[in-house]
Amino acid sequence: MSEYIDQNQTGATIGIVEKQFFSFAAPPDKLNLEGGAGIGPVTLAYETCGFLNQDKSNVILVFHALSGDSHMAGYYDPKEPKPGWWDIMVGPGKGIDTDKYFVICSNIIGSCAGSMGPSSINLETGKAYGTDFPLITIGDMVEAQKALMDYLGIKSLLSVIGGSIGGMQALEWIVRYPGMVRSAIPLATTTRHSALAIAFNEVARQAIMADPNWNEGHYYSGKKPDMGLAIARMIGHITYLSDESMRKKFGRKLQNRSALSFEFGAEFQVESYLQHQGKKFIERFDANSFLYITKAADYFDLARQYGSGSLVKAF
Amino acid sequence: MSEYIDQNQTGATIGIVEKQFFSFAAPPDKLNLEGGAGIGPVTLAYETCGFLNQDKSNVILVFHALSGDSHMAGYYDPKEPKPGWWDIMVGPGKGIDTDKYFVICSNIIGSCAGSMGPSSINLETGKAYGTDFPLITIGDMVEAQKALMDYLGIKSLLSVIGGSIGGMQALEWIVRYPGMVRSAIPLATTTRHSALAIAFNEVARQAIMADPNWNEGHYYSGKKPDMGLAIARMIGHITYLSDESMRKKFGRKLQNRSALSFEFGAEFQVESYLQHQGKKFIERFDANSFLYITKAADYFDLARQYGSGSLVKAF
Repeated sequence: MSEYIDQNQTGATIGIVEKQFFSFAAPPDKLNLEGGAGIGPVTLAYETCGFLNQDKSNVILVFHALSGDSHMAGYYDPKEPKPGWWDIMVGPGKGIDTDKYFVICSNIIGSCAGSMGPSSINLETGKAYGTDFPLITIGDMVEAQKALMDYLGIKSLLSVIGGSIGGMQALEWIVRYPGMVRSAIPLATTTRHSALAIAFNEVARQAIMADPNWNEGHYYSGKKPDMGLAIARMIGHITYLSDESMRKKFGRKLQNRSALSFEFGAEFQVESYLQHQGKKFIERFDANSFLYITKAADYFDLARQYGSGSLVKAF
Repeated sequence: MSEYIDQNQTGATIGIVEKQFFSFAAPPDKLNLEGGAGIGPVTLAYETCGFLNQDKSNVILVFHALSGDSHMAGYYDPKEPKPGWWDIMVGPGKGIDTDKYFVICSNIIGSCAGSMGPSSINLETGKAYGTDFPLITIGDMVEAQKALMDYLGIKSLLSVIGGSIGGMQALEWIVRYPGMVRSAIPLATTTRHSALAIAFNEVARQAIMADPNWNEGHYYSGKKPDMGLAIARMIGHITYLSDESMRKKFGRKLQNRSALSFEFGAEFQVESYLQHQGKKFIERFDANSFLYITKAADYFDLARQYGSGSLVKAF
């Protein structure tokens, strides 16, 4: 199973994995959303690693962050240049040991990596939803994952694990299905965004919406709002590093030059880094998905929805 | 003199003041810039409050921040809705007491409030410079101010005072003209920007440059890059408040509603605040000036230019 060695040299990987799909809520059924709308049919892309044991007691559900996908570990293909996003953690003998656990990662609804989201085709119009897609919440993401668990016949989760928006899903799972979740590892996350976190997300959203190619969210048949999405990603990347780590990583070092150029353009290393992150992102992510997922994160407020102490009560 | 009462109810104001202009470096002369280019003729807008004493020993030079101007105190006109930006501090009996001191504030070069900058007309082409205007430094701003002091016959400054980019000018004055400056009050400033500060400025600049109306900086005869400038200002405003002050000021409070709307748009108060700041700014500021002044701030590095300990040596 472990014939492929991952590029981070972190030991054996799970090897070849498959991108799987699950669809539910086919009309006239619907997935009822917290905002009042209903959507269907709903498709989720997901990946599983390891084997389900006989009493189905070894299931770990992993959640990805904002821009992630279901491809958490291994390779779709021996020629794939790098493994899934958490290959360093999920694999045989690794932190989340696939020799012991059946590990599932599902792409969230609202995303653009195989699950239903604003870039999906609206069967009623034959065109992509764009901003006709209803706003979703972290709870809605969890409901879709619950439907996948039901489909797989899984009634108990040994652990729910994720970072950032993935951590919000872990927290939501605990409170929404306390009898089903035996443990949780929420990483780098919060029970609700501060004003500062909302501010960063809102400016990033405004950057996308200010791009004339955004076209009120209906851009799938034309030019995409790439410039706006790149700015949004750059704003995000500022928040992913601390002041201190940026000082250590970049300081005031110049990129490929020894003196100031007295021209606009990326001459400090930190400028070059941010521009690179922006450019890379537009090749793999959908601007509307960025809007929907950040909004879901801003809406998330465990105490508001379930009352204070809800996390404590759940255990 | 103190017949006008300012709107902040901070006591008497200096009353009516005048926007003055000073021009120098008329061709064939030039103001030689640190980047190697030369500009001329150079105009500065400035304001003075109080009276110069006989031995010219009571001069205080005040510097404005990024988006400020020379109008530091008083009113241009009795009908002006609010006084100059530092009326709370500069006036009779105030912190910077105009009964005692002759206080000067000059608009910086690169700005758009009367001094020479990218929106000025290039006499060689008859059109606004746009990005043909050369990059400037904090040192260049100080050289222009020095020319104004020479013109006014001022050989000694009792104090140099300013915040943010204005504080950088105060620091530059100390090191560049140590024999001329008797004291300095640099506020909320630094001897050089960290990687994080450069990162925020660069993303703001990218937002302007991503606006198709920016047109490589030559937009003065057409539509202005208002959307990009508004995003840039919103990014700036995030940095003007601390996490803690945003928590106190906004928290997760909603704007004019009691429940989430499940629509995009400003529903949290912090979102509404940022959008308001962005919209207000485009009415009064030039996008290219934002680019030039933030770049000058990022370039500022007192130790790199004058050696470490240069500030200590100056006193």
